[in-house]
Amino acid sequence: MIVGAGFGGLEAARGLARAPVRVTLVDRRNHYLFQPLLYQVATATLSPADIAYPIRSILRRQKNADVVLAEVVSIDPDRRQVSLRDGGILSYDTLVVASGARHAYFGHEDWEPRAPGLKNLEDALEIRRRILLAFEEADRETDAGRRQRLLTFAIVGGGPTGVELAGAIAEIADHVLVDDFRHIDPREARVVLIEAGPRILPSYSEKSSENAAAELRRLRVEVRAGEPVTAVDETGLVAGGRHIEAGTVLWAAGVAASRVGSCLGAPVDKNGRVVVEPDLTVPGHPEIFVIGDLALFTHQGGKPLPGVSPVAMQQGRHVARSIRHRLAGRAASPFRYLDKGSMAVVGRSAAIAELLGLKLRGFPAWIAWSMLHIFYLIGFRNRFIVMFEWAWAYVTYQRGARLITGNLEAPRKR
Amino acid sequence: MIVGAGFGGLEAARGLARAPVRVTLVDRRNHYLFQPLLYQVATATLSPADIAYPIRSILRRQKNADVVLAEVVSIDPDRRQVSLRDGGILSYDTLVVASGARHAYFGHEDWEPRAPGLKNLEDALEIRRRILLAFEEADRETDAGRRQRLLTFAIVGGGPTGVELAGAIAEIADHVLVDDFRHIDPREARVVLIEAGPRILPSYSEKSSENAAAELRRLRVEVRAGEPVTAVDETGLVAGGRHIEAGTVLWAAGVAASRVGSCLGAPVDKNGRVVVEPDLTVPGHPEIFVIGDLALFTHQGGKPLPGVSPVAMQQGRHVARSIRHRLAGRAASPFRYLDKGSMAVVGRSAAIAELLGLKLRGFPAWIAWSMLHIFYLIGFRNRFIVMFEWAWAYVTYQRGARLITGNLEAPRKR
Repeated sequence: MIVGAGFGGLEAARGLARAPVRVTLVDRRNHYLFQPLLYQVATATLSPADIAYPIRSILRRQKNADVVLAEVVSIDPDRRQVSLRDGGILSYDTLVVASGARHAYFGHEDWEPRAPGLKNLEDALEIRRRILLAFEEADRETDAGRRQRLLTFAIVGGGPTGVELAGAIAEIADHVLVDDFRHIDPREARVVLIEAGPRILPSYSEKSSENAAAELRRLRVEVRAGEPVTAVDETGLVAGGRHIEAGTVLWAAGVAASRVGSCLGAPVDKNGRVVVEPDLTVPGHPEIFVIGDLALFTHQGGKPLPGVSPVAMQQGRHVARSIRHRLAGRAASPFRYLDKGSMAVVGRSAAIAELLGLKLRGFPAWIAWSMLHIFYLIGFRNRFIVMFEWAWAYVTYQRGARLITGNLEAPRKR
Repeated sequence: MIVGAGFGGLEAARGLARAPVRVTLVDRRNHYLFQPLLYQVATATLSPADIAYPIRSILRRQKNADVVLAEVVSIDPDRRQVSLRDGGILSYDTLVVASGARHAYFGHEDWEPRAPGLKNLEDALEIRRRILLAFEEADRETDAGRRQRLLTFAIVGGGPTGVELAGAIAEIADHVLVDDFRHIDPREARVVLIEAGPRILPSYSEKSSENAAAELRRLRVEVRAGEPVTAVDETGLVAGGRHIEAGTVLWAAGVAASRVGSCLGAPVDKNGRVVVEPDLTVPGHPEIFVIGDLALFTHQGGKPLPGVSPVAMQQGRHVARSIRHRLAGRAASPFRYLDKGSMAVVGRSAAIAELLGLKLRGFPAWIAWSMLHIFYLIGFRNRFIVMFEWAWAYVTYQRGARLITGNLEAPRKR
């Protein structure tokens, strides 16, 4: 049984295609989500269906795989059973827990309504709605102070998601909306990226981090590092001790691992990640593997592996291989992560990449980023449409999915 | 001022592009919606952004046009003002009311949660969610009776929307999902199309109506005409005195005009449509025009014009022309509808069309329908993507947008 059909869970399922096992993949969504492009749904470039793919379709030809649409609420390692939200109970022989993480507010969960995070398609559509609605409200606002507040976007968290959101919002204001309003100039919008640590993109080299900050400033994004956020209120937030008036606050600052990790009787860190053995199993339960964002793997140089898709995918493949080896009577081997590099996009023709020892920036990094993401998308249709949307956005400076949908009421006054 | 940016309102706005007037277009959505393809969002072929386009982008180059995102709740014809949901008040010299219609339950509004209708993108995503979720629930249901109920889809209303939904659901069951489930055969699904009147597609010729019914039966849709629905309950509905067990009930039976029509002091029919003068104005108020689905126009042969997009578009253009003529000191002329024909799609290579005196069916009608709908879409991007999605669906028998999003809880037991 595999819980969670993200990068890790899906690789584990596929890796068992030819093994003499029955695979049950449980997810509370019917679709696999290509999270690295989720910010492009939040910023109106892509549609949800462009970065999501039905899990059943992915595994349609894998006859040993069954897909169950259900939410796992708890795991009983002694009885080898998982409990589902709908009351159902499923049994397993071997369990792979790959249920990922959500954003976290470090004890300030009350900030969430004012500062939504980005983890699933609903989050993305809500953020898209808020960004587009802010310009609409500003266009009708007669008070200059309130108008400036409506046109201020604060993004908390200088990791890849925060950087990508900030760059994309700046481009929307400067290019996409520029001729659309009669009472405001969207270029008056202010985009502020706030990072508590000393620099943005802390997991990258200092050089790449500086390059990203320079690219962001070129797009008129205010980059504020070393300014921890201590309050989020109705009119904005407090960062580094100063109040910033902002109508829209987005949260890209922290993650908390899925709650089911706490059922396994294994030690967890403060973010809820399960401390795993070198072979990705749980101490005392060799039949339970934990992978991806839910796992805390520290056996390689002492530093925990980051919560990124290459780690999850390699771990998923490793677990499938370990299970096949066990069935063949061989011992499981320890997991080793092969770091091929990382990359983040800042905007049009602007990205940073650290690949195979090379540090790229600007257009070459952006092309490398684009090609790699197209390659990892699932399905010809999604690849084709994403390529088309990118080409169209590049040529026309427009965005294909500028819809305000969902809740028709405006959010609380801002 | 134009209220409503549908087919009628948008044509009126564009028709005033070169007139010496200020145009204010008020809509509660930020996007124009190509309603004829809405059922394809509900049945997972297209994404919302493929059939919607930001109103501001459409009018971006029309410098005399301003767009206001707001909901009009009432109109005061004596003061020449409209009131907005957010408390705002706007004044006008000339008013064009084009706020359309919603689905109606003829006094049975309590049926709506069980039998949702299809008028906007949220409706479409909710219907898509219910259709896809029904198969998921059936796959996990062990009771044969409940499983068959979950796999039964009843569509109430044999107009074009009902016919299109029924055909598309049958195709999803027979082709799209066929290899995806391990515990059910989606081909066991039963699709029932229920029409109260003596035949489906009553606004078409008897011959076309028969052809459509034959095409639907070829797709294994049960067509039941002459069976008025008298109850909708937790387990299905009662049609023609008999109970049909159906897990999913969709409503395509009736429309009610937008409520603002009742503010104009003009006579309205039982569906809330405003009875207009031959020049589309309201009696006693030559400065107020009513067009599209909200207008009841009976001056051409005594039969009211149907609530279809060609009527709304021609009326929008006529109103723009009348306003230009008035400004030039000329009298307004009566509206005349030029009926170029109508068409409805049943499924893959299956449609009926009555065009310029010709009655087409099957593949030729389907090609005519496809080309005409691509032509009337707005924007190169949307045309290109819709064409690609259709080609892809045609070749692969797949659907590009098979996502269950929104409310994660299942609807009430069914």
